[in-house]
Amino acid sequence: MEASTLRNTFIFSLLSIFSISSSTTTSHSHHHHPLDPLTPQEFTLVQTIITNSYHNSNPNNLTFQYVGLDEPNKPTLLSWLSTLKTTTPPPRRAFVITRLNKQTHEITVDLSTSSIISDHIYSGHGYPLFTLEEQTTASELPMTYPPFLESVKKRGLNLSDVVCSTYSVGWYGEEKSARVLRILCFYTEGTVNLYVRPVEGVTLVVDLDEMKITQYSDRFTVPMAKAGGTEYRAAKQKPPFGPKLKGVATVQPDGSGIEIAGHTIRWANWAFHLGFDVRAGPIISLASIYDLEKKTFRRVMYRGYISEMFVPYMEPTEEWYYKTFFDVGEFGFGLSAVSLEPMKDCPAHAVFMDGYYAGQDGKPVKISNVFCIFEQNAGNVLWRHTETGILGEVIREVRPEVSLVVRMVSTVGNYDYIIDWEFKPTGSIKVGVGLTGILEVKGVSYTHTDQIKEDGHGTLVADNTIGVYHDHFLTFHLDLDVDGETNSFVKHKLETRRVANNISPRKSYWTVVSETVKTELDARIQLGLKQEELVMVNPKKKTKLGNPIGYRLFPGSTVTSLLLKEDYPQIRAAFTNYNVWVTPYNKSEKWAGGVFVDQSRGDDTLAVWTLRNRKIENKDIVLWYTMGFHHVPCQEDFPIMSTLSGGFELRPTNFFERNPVLKTKAPKIGHWPNCTAKP
Amino acid sequence: MEASTLRNTFIFSLLSIFSISSSTTTSHSHHHHPLDPLTPQEFTLVQTIITNSYHNSNPNNLTFQYVGLDEPNKPTLLSWLSTLKTTTPPPRRAFVITRLNKQTHEITVDLSTSSIISDHIYSGHGYPLFTLEEQTTASELPMTYPPFLESVKKRGLNLSDVVCSTYSVGWYGEEKSARVLRILCFYTEGTVNLYVRPVEGVTLVVDLDEMKITQYSDRFTVPMAKAGGTEYRAAKQKPPFGPKLKGVATVQPDGSGIEIAGHTIRWANWAFHLGFDVRAGPIISLASIYDLEKKTFRRVMYRGYISEMFVPYMEPTEEWYYKTFFDVGEFGFGLSAVSLEPMKDCPAHAVFMDGYYAGQDGKPVKISNVFCIFEQNAGNVLWRHTETGILGEVIREVRPEVSLVVRMVSTVGNYDYIIDWEFKPTGSIKVGVGLTGILEVKGVSYTHTDQIKEDGHGTLVADNTIGVYHDHFLTFHLDLDVDGETNSFVKHKLETRRVANNISPRKSYWTVVSETVKTELDARIQLGLKQEELVMVNPKKKTKLGNPIGYRLFPGSTVTSLLLKEDYPQIRAAFTNYNVWVTPYNKSEKWAGGVFVDQSRGDDTLAVWTLRNRKIENKDIVLWYTMGFHHVPCQEDFPIMSTLSGGFELRPTNFFERNPVLKTKAPKIGHWPNCTAKP
Repeated sequence: MEASTLRNTFIFSLLSIFSISSSTTTSHSHHHHPLDPLTPQEFTLVQTIITNSYHNSNPNNLTFQYVGLDEPNKPTLLSWLSTLKTTTPPPRRAFVITRLNKQTHEITVDLSTSSIISDHIYSGHGYPLFTLEEQTTASELPMTYPPFLESVKKRGLNLSDVVCSTYSVGWYGEEKSARVLRILCFYTEGTVNLYVRPVEGVTLVVDLDEMKITQYSDRFTVPMAKAGGTEYRAAKQKPPFGPKLKGVATVQPDGSGIEIAGHTIRWANWAFHLGFDVRAGPIISLASIYDLEKKTFRRVMYRGYISEMFVPYMEPTEEWYYKTFFDVGEFGFGLSAVSLEPMKDCPAHAVFMDGYYAGQDGKPVKISNVFCIFEQNAGNVLWRHTETGILGEVIREVRPEVSLVVRMVSTVGNYDYIIDWEFKPTGSIKVGVGLTGILEVKGVSYTHTDQIKEDGHGTLVADNTIGVYHDHFLTFHLDLDVDGETNSFVKHKLETRRVANNISPRKSYWTVVSETVKTELDARIQLGLKQEELVMVNPKKKTKLGNPIGYRLFPGSTVTSLLLKEDYPQIRAAFTNYNVWVTPYNKSEKWAGGVFVDQSRGDDTLAVWTLRNRKIENKDIVLWYTMGFHHVPCQEDFPIMSTLSGGFELRPTNFFERNPVLKTKAPKIGHWPNCTAKP
Repeated sequence: MEASTLRNTFIFSLLSIFSISSSTTTSHSHHHHPLDPLTPQEFTLVQTIITNSYHNSNPNNLTFQYVGLDEPNKPTLLSWLSTLKTTTPPPRRAFVITRLNKQTHEITVDLSTSSIISDHIYSGHGYPLFTLEEQTTASELPMTYPPFLESVKKRGLNLSDVVCSTYSVGWYGEEKSARVLRILCFYTEGTVNLYVRPVEGVTLVVDLDEMKITQYSDRFTVPMAKAGGTEYRAAKQKPPFGPKLKGVATVQPDGSGIEIAGHTIRWANWAFHLGFDVRAGPIISLASIYDLEKKTFRRVMYRGYISEMFVPYMEPTEEWYYKTFFDVGEFGFGLSAVSLEPMKDCPAHAVFMDGYYAGQDGKPVKISNVFCIFEQNAGNVLWRHTETGILGEVIREVRPEVSLVVRMVSTVGNYDYIIDWEFKPTGSIKVGVGLTGILEVKGVSYTHTDQIKEDGHGTLVADNTIGVYHDHFLTFHLDLDVDGETNSFVKHKLETRRVANNISPRKSYWTVVSETVKTELDARIQLGLKQEELVMVNPKKKTKLGNPIGYRLFPGSTVTSLLLKEDYPQIRAAFTNYNVWVTPYNKSEKWAGGVFVDQSRGDDTLAVWTLRNRKIENKDIVLWYTMGFHHVPCQEDFPIMSTLSGGFELRPTNFFERNPVLKTKAPKIGHWPNCTAKP
């Protein structure tokens, strides 16, 4: 048969493993893993239960802003696991945030008893995630709003080519705040690259409860950037094309090493659970690695996910100052996830998973291929050595590296974020973040930098187009359980020692001074200033040799926010004041920017939680790492940006008694299918 | 035919391109590229010329310590290139360092006239690279040295299982110094992993001019570490094996995109010259990228290579204090290069190049497969965007990333360094450094950390085995020519601005303050302390929009040396005092640690050159970047280390008018050869 068919069959066979078990889990809820995301049936059940409970109110007033798994408390889940799942699993619950009659409800639903456990009206600061539906409705209001039509006419634009988009407004010290969105509009005449053609000068504010425009301003006009050169679709571009890239087709002679059952993934020496959440996107749980010597799986991470993002723009003027986005808590990193394209977003041998979330009406919505999972053969070397030191012998041992990647892409409006969770057979967990997509640009009159006399707050990337300076901060919740939940956070400080009384011809050397951090405030670290290694250890366990069993954080970025700490956006994003934080496990502390982030006032952030300065030694603790990018745009970012990558790594350090891949054999790659030339 | 055959044919076809043109170049020297490394014929010619010139002296006294291309002065080469190679190429010359009658000679040979242009006796501090032959001879001396045999006997070891290795001695303030090496020995009984079984306590010093042992000490004994668990050869290991990795086989439906003619490589939009030097290893020259809009190649880098390495160990006691190695200038990074193993060190579709160097007798020695060159398809995304903002349309454009990798592995004794020069179609040049191989360990009496009462200067990684703390610093010579040789070095400082008189609800933002660095001393940067971007620009050229055409350094590591500046090793390695330096081009300033590094005294380093504080603005300048690793060993590094990776990137920033891969089509990967199942 044709290899392409071969590949498809092969992918299908793996997908079917998933879909079968997935349907199993959905049909027999007792087959659920307690951490499985809600199934379509469960979303429907939650929707029915809550809608019925409000049968007296106008259902049009009821909107589902967030529906997700209310995961079991950690001790409960772990004790269930410790019984090897023989006991009854923890109760299956959903956490729901609704808006009803201009009020925010926090609701917990028990799915086994189909009952509402609690329903609180939230009266604190901030609002829940936006729904896609309300954003779409709001973004269409301008089309029938006379002053806006006037502004469009004044600019000589065709209304049919104008599209609008919604922006969170942040908080700038206001005493009272309505639930509103800002609307900015763009011009698609002759291109689909709307974000690079803003209708600059016009801002609208929409009240989401009234769903009507409550503020409007048209302060100035600038020439509309031309459509030419903004197109990125190959089908719409004209020659010359290039550079020409030659691809590879891959086949796995021994098949795939990936086993998927429900949401549990096994690969090489790894086992973990992969969940989808409309707010966080991918959630990795119970990541454990098989220890060949101890003949058992050992836990590394209880739960890891992107807790919050902060994307502040550096333009203080009226049309731009509020642009300080929290993509996880405001727009939903999972809600913004897009379907991945086989062969392009992921290699040919990738397998895919779907994701589900609740629409504004509470009914399940499917995102096909929201995750891809693939074995990565990048051509790297796992380990090697050539030995010529022994007379008459030349020894060469090389092990090529294969790793497993779980990928999701979240497109929050203009930006595409590529999130990779990579599992290496060495025990390392590597997280990769790729930034691509379209710049957020400001329309200006300039066509040459010589015309810019004051701070342009960005780079002139095209005629009439400034790519505005901004940052991206991604804050990861990393609940490491290094060989068990009781851990301590240790700084290995590299300190210079001066050689005393000439005991050596050397005058100096460095050594390691280890400090176990006792409390939260001492665990806050701004990276890059000191030469130290950060290790999460299990104080109750040591190797046979007596070394503390640990995992080390290899940070990839040491960037922190440059905004003043007292500035409103930074108060809300105070979790970016440091790159590293450590807190004791607390089920309620999941979202670094708080539960209700839209227009939040910074009273529920990681920075506030840690002020209690709780003890973190010899406890179940959570590591928070923030990686940041300062983005000074350049012309290469226009009209679409090539991927800018960053990441970090969690690496075992004295977790194993010796190299865990010492006895890994090189994979068979010599045996091919019989290929008879090209088609 | 069988696909494996298919592949081999395919590789052969590419190799033949190389070998044909290579033989061409060697047979008609006028077909040489002036930067081609010396051919075997040229090595022989140099050897004959020099040997004849010393016909009066005892040829046994004559040793060739270094023979390499004396590359043309840059202006000469560039003016030749500017005539499109129509004029006569620059004279073809070799630079040679010999030892004769205990003296070091610096010799320049003209190959066209077969004459010696200059022959100076070097009387300064320091000695040339070691030859393999003298190291081998020296390392065998102990086997017949009675005191050593006594020490072996005393330890109850079989002499036949003892192997010795050579170590540079450094400089610790001595007034006079002979050309010597230290010898340390290891025990191979029951294993080939010699480095983890040192015969601790015994040191020998060999005078290389006399080729005899001049110092001997046996200060103490420690239990010999056991052989069990040190073996890394799959063939010698016992089950259980694992973790099991599944491989992939690849085929390129449209063939390879790599074109090699002689030492010139073309791929996608890149063209560059790849040379091999016995000291530096790979040398990338004249890297230029094709600009689709300007319809011309534009130069990015004139010359890039590893100029020096510094690997200091942090053990001040008698047996260890001197271990502060300069792997490039003492042992030769190219001399230490090993043959790469197809399918393991490099992917199946890689092509290979051989390298040549002069043996101690001056005759050419071949290293087969010293380089591999391959297209990397790691499954990454070059750029992508999904657009749902336009009603009734869903747009998804994705371009998978393909890049070109040039790889060499240098095994300096125990350590294996994997050096990757990666060229991306975006214009980015990424350098990857992987550290693998065997730890340098110290024999101790300890079998548990509880027994260690004082500073062990390392980690107990096995019984009787301490992995000693150490650093790796790699200093890269990056002669960037950003769209021409006249460049300036600019710091883009990200500075926080406080909003004045409440003109905005915001209190702060950051902006970019650009500073062109005028002189060498101001260009010295220790990274990690400030948030700034480092850009090499062409002050004579701007984009149509007026942005300075530039390339930006994305440093991967901000680590610097922790030794005291006044310590002897640090004086010799003063080029690691900062991560970044910029100097005006000067042909003689190639080696950051000096030309004669063995026992150097730091009088010829990058740090000394820059004290002249020359002007670097609007000049042909060279960027020097040092990436460092602090290595605190862990048990996972034993008995062999998995690859620890680092690197840096040079990225175009306003070099192009727009994204240079905007009009790249996704490579064809759907079409496979017809494959009929597995063999």
